[in-house]
Amino acid sequence: MAELLKAKPVVKEIYTQLVHDITRLRRHPVLEIILIGDNAAAEWYVSNLIKNGTKYGIDVKLRQISYTIDQTELENLIRECNQDAGIDGIMLQKPLPDHLDEQVINSLIKPEKDVDGFHPLNLGKLVLEQPSLLPCTPQAVIALLKFYKIETAGKHIVILGRSNIVGKPLGLLLLGKAEPGNATVTICHSRTTDLALYTRQADILIAAIGKPEFVKAGMIKKNAVIIDVGTNLITDVNGTDKYVGDVDAEAVINLASALSPVPGGVGSVTTALLLANVVKAAFLKTKK
Amino acid sequence: MAELLKAKPVVKEIYTQLVHDITRLRRHPVLEIILIGDNAAAEWYVSNLIKNGTKYGIDVKLRQISYTIDQTELENLIRECNQDAGIDGIMLQKPLPDHLDEQVINSLIKPEKDVDGFHPLNLGKLVLEQPSLLPCTPQAVIALLKFYKIETAGKHIVILGRSNIVGKPLGLLLLGKAEPGNATVTICHSRTTDLALYTRQADILIAAIGKPEFVKAGMIKKNAVIIDVGTNLITDVNGTDKYVGDVDAEAVINLASALSPVPGGVGSVTTALLLANVVKAAFLKTKK
Repeated sequence: MAELLKAKPVVKEIYTQLVHDITRLRRHPVLEIILIGDNAAAEWYVSNLIKNGTKYGIDVKLRQISYTIDQTELENLIRECNQDAGIDGIMLQKPLPDHLDEQVINSLIKPEKDVDGFHPLNLGKLVLEQPSLLPCTPQAVIALLKFYKIETAGKHIVILGRSNIVGKPLGLLLLGKAEPGNATVTICHSRTTDLALYTRQADILIAAIGKPEFVKAGMIKKNAVIIDVGTNLITDVNGTDKYVGDVDAEAVINLASALSPVPGGVGSVTTALLLANVVKAAFLKTKK
Repeated sequence: MAELLKAKPVVKEIYTQLVHDITRLRRHPVLEIILIGDNAAAEWYVSNLIKNGTKYGIDVKLRQISYTIDQTELENLIRECNQDAGIDGIMLQKPLPDHLDEQVINSLIKPEKDVDGFHPLNLGKLVLEQPSLLPCTPQAVIALLKFYKIETAGKHIVILGRSNIVGKPLGLLLLGKAEPGNATVTICHSRTTDLALYTRQADILIAAIGKPEFVKAGMIKKNAVIIDVGTNLITDVNGTDKYVGDVDAEAVINLASALSPVPGGVGSVTTALLLANVVKAAFLKTKK
């Protein structure tokens, strides 16, 4: 049966480091969260950030704003946060309402305060393997692989999904020379023909496509490591709502050598790494 | 026998478009080339840029500088070129002498004048599929695929080489949604184990590793399309110096369905695209 790559000890390690770093910093870093509207899932995620942030020494300021905010108002708000010396990191909770241009806003956030790592300058530094604020979900996958000592060098890693925030940056990180990296990387997506042809070759398979329980036993190689990035809300046969990943965990658990659970896997590490990015941003400001 | 994907008609088309664009621009764009030292290959490449630039309507200014220039002097020179409203594009000929920090210099060139497409902001925009100045060699591969109507959507493209200026940006472009793109992309490199396992699966194989005639017949699939990015100077059995690619052309020509020749393939298209980037940079300035 597959070893479960649980977030808990990884998260513990991240928070221990974070507390240590804040002590060195000798002040509380400040995270500004901008939350538009009142989506329940977003509010839940944000409340988690606030709880953990304050617990470990980060001051979190929440600005919850009405859906009716327009592009210019939001841009002005971002500019205000960029200029505010009291703010180390800015997080704009996604998704944005349709009338707002997410790409423009992402590019407007000061790269040094961009704790989501979505600014093109930070993504470009990622391509070049230069230090930068990295997007949190790819970082979370890296953290899991590192913590559980899963060798990546020379391995074939197949990523399902080519998104700008997961698939592409993760592929670049795993291709890079820092450990864990040096992998042979294949990226598959909706236009890939005969998907299983690739997934069955993966030493490490990473699913990030947002399709509930999509990866079945027939799609993986025996003893593969499976990292499940998906978090999909479904209603099970008993009518109960629950979160499942992109991998059919029950189907693959006896075939894989390791599997990251959902919930309690990649997603949980992501929250901790967002807070770690706030501390990193605070150090960037101090160094200036 | 493989169809030869010759640069000539592609280059002709690029220059026709370039002349058309310069007419619309109603002025001659200006390219500033900074050449450090007197490397023969670099001088030959630069003289080609000057010849073609002036032929098609671009004013090329060459600054040839001694090897003794230090980092601060070079940085000051770049800042001067950034501020000079008379310069549309800045090209710093590579490689730089060892005492100069190439990454720092690449990041210092104003992104709107970065005709090499090496600035992290331009690479980040490439990740996000936003318009930007793209690096020329990846663009040249895309131009060849497009001109010769080679389908990429759903195809398995294997890239040999993970460099910041070819392998990674090219992989990102081919993964993107613009045509030619939508491919399933695998990137292999020096740490890949059993390279032929991957190359033999490629519908399109792109070699960019700088190893003369490395790709042999046993490494490719019948009817694959082979794009050769390499330009390696070797001395043949008769003692004659000549340029060869990363692919053993003679060995694969009867197996592949198409092959880009060296010389007269990717490299020749690259020069034309650098000049096209100068025109693009001029339009970026005009729009501001």
